[in-house]
Amino acid sequence: MAIGGTRVRTLRHVPSGKQSTDVASLIDRARGGDPRAVARLISQVEDGSPQLREVLAALAPYAGTAYVVGLTGSPGVGKSTSTNALVGEYRSRGKRVGVLAVDPSSPFSGGALLGDRVRMQDHATDPEVFIRSMASRGHLGGLAAATPQAARVLEAAGCEVIVIETVGVGQSEIEVASAADTTVVLLAPGMGDGIQAAKAGILEIGDVYVVNKADRDGADATARELNHMLALGERRNPGDWRQPIVKTVAARGEGVAEVVEALEKHRAYLAETGHLTTRRRARAAAEIEAIALGVLRSRYGSVHGGPDSPLYRLADRVAAGELDPFAAADELLAES
Amino acid sequence: MAIGGTRVRTLRHVPSGKQSTDVASLIDRARGGDPRAVARLISQVEDGSPQLREVLAALAPYAGTAYVVGLTGSPGVGKSTSTNALVGEYRSRGKRVGVLAVDPSSPFSGGALLGDRVRMQDHATDPEVFIRSMASRGHLGGLAAATPQAARVLEAAGCEVIVIETVGVGQSEIEVASAADTTVVLLAPGMGDGIQAAKAGILEIGDVYVVNKADRDGADATARELNHMLALGERRNPGDWRQPIVKTVAARGEGVAEVVEALEKHRAYLAETGHLTTRRRARAAAEIEAIALGVLRSRYGSVHGGPDSPLYRLADRVAAGELDPFAAADELLAES
Repeated sequence: MAIGGTRVRTLRHVPSGKQSTDVASLIDRARGGDPRAVARLISQVEDGSPQLREVLAALAPYAGTAYVVGLTGSPGVGKSTSTNALVGEYRSRGKRVGVLAVDPSSPFSGGALLGDRVRMQDHATDPEVFIRSMASRGHLGGLAAATPQAARVLEAAGCEVIVIETVGVGQSEIEVASAADTTVVLLAPGMGDGIQAAKAGILEIGDVYVVNKADRDGADATARELNHMLALGERRNPGDWRQPIVKTVAARGEGVAEVVEALEKHRAYLAETGHLTTRRRARAAAEIEAIALGVLRSRYGSVHGGPDSPLYRLADRVAAGELDPFAAADELLAES
Repeated sequence: MAIGGTRVRTLRHVPSGKQSTDVASLIDRARGGDPRAVARLISQVEDGSPQLREVLAALAPYAGTAYVVGLTGSPGVGKSTSTNALVGEYRSRGKRVGVLAVDPSSPFSGGALLGDRVRMQDHATDPEVFIRSMASRGHLGGLAAATPQAARVLEAAGCEVIVIETVGVGQSEIEVASAADTTVVLLAPGMGDGIQAAKAGILEIGDVYVVNKADRDGADATARELNHMLALGERRNPGDWRQPIVKTVAARGEGVAEVVEALEKHRAYLAETGHLTTRRRARAAAEIEAIALGVLRSRYGSVHGGPDSPLYRLADRVAAGELDPFAAADELLAES
């Protein structure tokens, strides 16, 4: 048991008694690779459990022990299949792997959808693989707060590589990029022209690009156009990392070893240039901010808190044109 | 000049002198429909101008005078073409229309891309139409803060309908939904199966669904599948608004009148049920929160503020595993 284990044991003796014992024993079991303990800890993160502070304090020493890969792209490009293939490749290299699949809450299931989890059944019984679907809403601070915390749980469980897979494009892509050491952007043939790619914001966040379904018509054209767009962007920062474009057929495992090679190269680049420290600092800062803002929000209430919450009253006055939003923000901060 | 005009004139006499005169005269000119004044006010909103507080105070009385329509969907479904067609339809009904097109900042142009603005040239010379491309990053509080403020400028300029068009799916869709009275979700044939649609989160936010490019193969299947998914969700809230699905060929203007009819019905529904008040309260609350959080952030700095900012120091300690993020958040709030 490492430094963290000692810390955890210390917590057993604090007066809060049973709760602390639970956290300590959960983390002990997670350290030993017990998937139910890992699952329970991630649930506490997702639900914003009252024990969350204690859990995070106990997890702190394991920060930074895993390499975190973000994987994103539009719906339909094959993210789940690619994650599955990546996990297989890392397993063949003897790594313990964690997967966080961030799906929007569905109005139907009340949680993450099952559809594409099925494609990951290859690894469902492998004790060296932890897979977790996360809901991206309903939690204070949302994805920005819960994902890095869940990653901390997986780090404590000894995962050497963590893949964070996000659905969709836009804001969620930016968030995954800030939560990862390396961001993989997945495309597929027929995604549309270069302007569409630029509109989706993907040219700014990828460290490694993958054109999946490379056996389909148009894969070469997609790779060529992407290469062209990236080359245009490159002129602005000539010394920067040159993002590679890898072609894969993830469903058959083709090209996946090359993706892992590209990831390892980027990881080495980050370490050599000091960018790894910078990125992880930024990630920690985002996490701290999300928690701080959550704490503030819990002080001044929400409109869902009803007419008694300060925010509700101010919002009604702004909506009625009696007050401007800056003045309302000033009042809110004065009240909290 | 209405109530607001009086307020604006009053500002001319405050001691800050020239600045106030500028704001007052800008708003006067915007009220008169001067597009350059409207553009300058929106720029002040986007750039977080030092005059922003004053601008928003002067705009407050015009809150709620426009009907705000959000339009969103994945890249490639024809959002810009549909916005263009919607503007045409509202113009034919004699309405003054504003458009806010929220594009991700491009690394190439440093701002919104020009590509799809071209498709809106139909209305470029119409004095009753105001079109503005906004960058979605770089501003304190981001889209959540800048978009409703820009909408306030368009309201003051007498726009009766404001269309907010956003790129992408996921988080940005949720934000557009919270910024609009009515949210239109655009799809096109070939978007993928129902699970893909559900993954993209679109089933939870649309008030009106539009299947564009309805002359293409698969349009009926897309509409049918969407209808099925929506029907499944409906069981959970039987008394709620039944989201209509309208088929269009926006490039030829087909079905666009039906979209506006659906919008008018939803607007009437919102007014009758009191949901309009609820939505606008929630919108104002989000705006107030975004500003309040921006004010707080400006107090405690960012990691970009360098090693002297409290956040930078805390983030380094969290990244090194010396401190957990909750404890760091507590320290941050104590320092601010």
